[in-house]
Amino acid sequence: MSETWLHVSCELSFDVAVSTPMVFMLRPRSNPGQWVAAEDYRLSPPLQVIEFTDALGNLCQRMVAPVGEFRINTSADVMVADQPSASEAAVFVEIPDLPDQVLGYLLPSRYCESDRFGDMATEIVAGCRPGYEQVVAITDWVRKTIRFTPLSSTYPVSAIEVHQRGEGVCRDLAHIGIALCRALCIPARLVVGYLQNLEPMDIHAWFEVFVGDQWYACDPISPPGAGARIAIAHGRDATDVAIYNQYGPLLLPREILVSVEAFDRNSGHG
Amino acid sequence: MSETWLHVSCELSFDVAVSTPMVFMLRPRSNPGQWVAAEDYRLSPPLQVIEFTDALGNLCQRMVAPVGEFRINTSADVMVADQPSASEAAVFVEIPDLPDQVLGYLLPSRYCESDRFGDMATEIVAGCRPGYEQVVAITDWVRKTIRFTPLSSTYPVSAIEVHQRGEGVCRDLAHIGIALCRALCIPARLVVGYLQNLEPMDIHAWFEVFVGDQWYACDPISPPGAGARIAIAHGRDATDVAIYNQYGPLLLPREILVSVEAFDRNSGHG
Amino acid sequence: MSETWLHVSCELSFDVAVSTPMVFMLRPRSNPGQWVAAEDYRLSPPLQVIEFTDALGNLCQRMVAPVGEFRINTSADVMVADQPSASEAAVFVEIPDLPDQVLGYLLPSRYCESDRFGDMATEIVAGCRPGYEQVVAITDWVRKTIRFTPLSSTYPVSAIEVHQRGEGVCRDLAHIGIALCRALCIPARLVVGYLQNLEPMDIHAWFEVFVGDQWYACDPISPPGAGARIAIAHGRDATDVAIYNQYGPLLLPREILVSVEAFDRNSGHG
Amino acid sequence: MSETWLHVSCELSFDVAVSTPMVFMLRPRSNPGQWVAAEDYRLSPPLQVIEFTDALGNLCQRMVAPVGEFRINTSADVMVADQPSASEAAVFVEIPDLPDQVLGYLLPSRYCESDRFGDMATEIVAGCRPGYEQVVAITDWVRKTIRFTPLSSTYPVSAIEVHQRGEGVCRDLAHIGIALCRALCIPARLVVGYLQNLEPMDIHAWFEVFVGDQWYACDPISPPGAGARIAIAHGRDATDVAIYNQYGPLLLPREILVSVEAFDRNSGHG
Repeated sequence: MSETWLHVSCELSFDVAVSTPMVFMLRPRSNPGQWVAAEDYRLSPPLQVIEFTDALGNLCQRMVAPVGEFRINTSADVMVADQPSASEAAVFVEIPDLPDQVLGYLLPSRYCESDRFGDMATEIVAGCRPGYEQVVAITDWVRKTIRFTPLSSTYPVSAIEVHQRGEGVCRDLAHIGIALCRALCIPARLVVGYLQNLEPMDIHAWFEVFVGDQWYACDPISPPGAGARIAIAHGRDATDVAIYNQYGPLLLPREILVSVEAFDRNSGHG
Repeated sequence: MSETWLHVSCELSFDVAVSTPMVFMLRPRSNPGQWVAAEDYRLSPPLQVIEFTDALGNLCQRMVAPVGEFRINTSADVMVADQPSASEAAVFVEIPDLPDQVLGYLLPSRYCESDRFGDMATEIVAGCRPGYEQVVAITDWVRKTIRFTPLSSTYPVSAIEVHQRGEGVCRDLAHIGIALCRALCIPARLVVGYLQNLEPMDIHAWFEVFVGDQWYACDPISPPGAGARIAIAHGRDATDVAIYNQYGPLLLPREILVSVEAFDRNSGHG
Repeated sequence: MSETWLHVSCELSFDVAVSTPMVFMLRPRSNPGQWVAAEDYRLSPPLQVIEFTDALGNLCQRMVAPVGEFRINTSADVMVADQPSASEAAVFVEIPDLPDQVLGYLLPSRYCESDRFGDMATEIVAGCRPGYEQVVAITDWVRKTIRFTPLSSTYPVSAIEVHQRGEGVCRDLAHIGIALCRALCIPARLVVGYLQNLEPMDIHAWFEVFVGDQWYACDPISPPGAGARIAIAHGRDATDVAIYNQYGPLLLPREILVSVEAFDRNSGHG
Repeated sequence: MSETWLHVSCELSFDVAVSTPMVFMLRPRSNPGQWVAAEDYRLSPPLQVIEFTDALGNLCQRMVAPVGEFRINTSADVMVADQPSASEAAVFVEIPDLPDQVLGYLLPSRYCESDRFGDMATEIVAGCRPGYEQVVAITDWVRKTIRFTPLSSTYPVSAIEVHQRGEGVCRDLAHIGIALCRALCIPARLVVGYLQNLEPMDIHAWFEVFVGDQWYACDPISPPGAGARIAIAHGRDATDVAIYNQYGPLLLPREILVSVEAFDRNSGHG
């Protein structure tokens, strides 16, 4: 198994008109394929933060954004192991054999109305072997059918709406992929994180499917050479894994600056 | 504080055409206001069951329904404490003061698109004091506006669809109540359970709101004299708390028999 | 896989001199090899109970025992699957391959000072293959070395003290077995529950070891024909899984009545 | 409420003779009074690490230390809020009023045999009001009775042994304080972490008691002016919160370098 060190950073800035409670998810956590070795979280102006873990295991930061210019800078040094590529060996898992905690990812959710995608899904995967082959067909279908238009939506729309529009941001394409997979009883979840060679660079969203005996990444946007991925949060859809939720009048970031760079962490430390 | 003992039971029967994986939520759990003293769960034919607790704390039973007639009988003896009625003292809780695990109940979910109900909610509660008074206005509005038609829907529809139709089952009315409350930043969740004097008797669904410092029950269907309630499961909407989920071809119960009876458990045992 | 239905019951009665806060663990939970189909929990006099799940997943009932005669009757109908016997195939698991949540069962605990049993354990298992063969040697050694004397202790003593005394109740023999296994880096935990053919009948305690890829039951007291087992609670030692903990002056049960009977639950239920 | 920024670091180095599985707890987590803004975890040589959260909520890092020189460097920038000092207002909490998850901290544990300290505790607190006044009496008694001798023990000994010896390291003094508090039904737990002005600087251990409505720090070693504290991990005793556990032949660090420095994080960051 080979591995890559990435330095990632995200800067969000807001012009806050009224003091606004917010919850951020901006801290990747270590998991079996991802080791977060260093991290930095910087608020300007400095602010009191409460951190907690939500029901899905994501780390969340609560705070009240003060009036004026408000900026969050986060960065991390993360070691990402090469992820095993899903292959034909990754077959469909019969429902009774799914782990308990995976079952919830079969259900419809706010932006993935899988209960309405049964016919479409069946048609798309006609002739495929159950499991990964179906997932590949779905991912390809989304890539060809829904035009990827960065910056085309400011708030999440559901898979049904995305399909009607025929275009969307990365999150929207992932939502439709999730809805189609779930309609075939393949567990699917949304991931928000960093993608090494994304163009234009931004916080990215893709989806994962549970086939064979683990979760595999699927991305309707990015070609195979897109590089390593770092997950920040997992959830049923964008509701669960918004990088920020705000409560009160709509507050859009004035600017989001994201960077991902490979580096050699161990040089000079051995 | 006074208390009531209820004997509740639910019998579900299915005609199963193809062997079908299912997940049931039919076991009430003890909680501070509800003590489950006795319980019985009977399957016919006998079957292997795996029980687990989901991410929200609900007890779930997994099994594979075999071809033929399939029946589940559950019953329980439950002591329910009189629930404090929410009152004007139950004020709106500012977001920064909400407990961490309550925050998720502010977000939109599959059947409660609270992100689209802001204007309607604001209009309904015009002039109300933030908190319980708003919740009362919303519950009253749902009661008057959406006609309660038992048996009118076989699968869940979303709050937007319920509003368009102008009618629905208990679950639908609860969904629209939840969407309106969340649109005002009042945490709201769906509860599935038993209601003592429900007419016609059935498994019931209502919603709870977090105001003051706890969850309070709200029910657009039932009048104040409807009696005691026993919660079986809590969740964001019907997705989380279906009393059963099935995987495969649609399988509707041939029959659901529900009963709730008050009794005196302690007579003769003292 | 074959299965057995058992009806189990436990009655505890106390003469309470001063009102005493207590925590009971008397409710078996369903788990993959154990399905709790029916249950009854009866308090005399009736009393307010709070139920919660502890950090290890055991169900606990809190209450304040009132002055006078106080009695708890619990019973359950439980389906127990035949447990796979551990065999030579169940080899030692290298530490890096143990599941995260199993690691804690390698550490010393109040009554299992495994940090002091290294030499003794090494001597006992000399010549054994790592894993189940070592566990068998330890269980046999405990059976031969520590005399089983029901009722010989009223409060828990530690493995070191048990070894000095050369005798103990089932819990004491399990503690010494646990301490010896952990000293060899084999995860071991205490189980409290029912054993079908225990003589004299009582609440029983045994231990489980993690070898191969799962937990296996070990019992220095009971011969292979002792019948089926129902677990009520798991923990590091008697501290974690006392069937009751009290706070205040020592309060011993006046009487404990335990029964276990096989029955045919499904006859007559179709 | 005022606050302090601390930069803390810990370097551990080992001469490893045989490849050794280890579990470290070296990452402070954010909690309501403690915000971990930046962090760095560096292994030399680089190594694969698995991170998980244990049953008590502590972050643990698993790895296999390779043969040769092995070094871990961790550091963090932490904002610590001024902790409210416990005062006479912090009264004893009756058992029925304790939160569920606090109850476990009343029980004896491997190194805190509180079940044997009842008489001693009663004597020490004679005349004190239940609650914080008792805790102060116990902390003072430990300070006067057990001589603090840094570096006097290499492996943990229990409270009984510490009392016999009459001396111990910070952890030992905390253990005896915990045992005495629990003997009086005051929940008590061990904390491992950093203390700003500790002399000589080292990883420190103290204890916390639950009185009034929260946990308060108690430290038999350090005078009131010892500065701010950063918790790395909480547990029942040293078993739960060793900064490292190893599996195999004894492996002591060749060196532990600890530093704590106050700094002004926000200067120059706007």
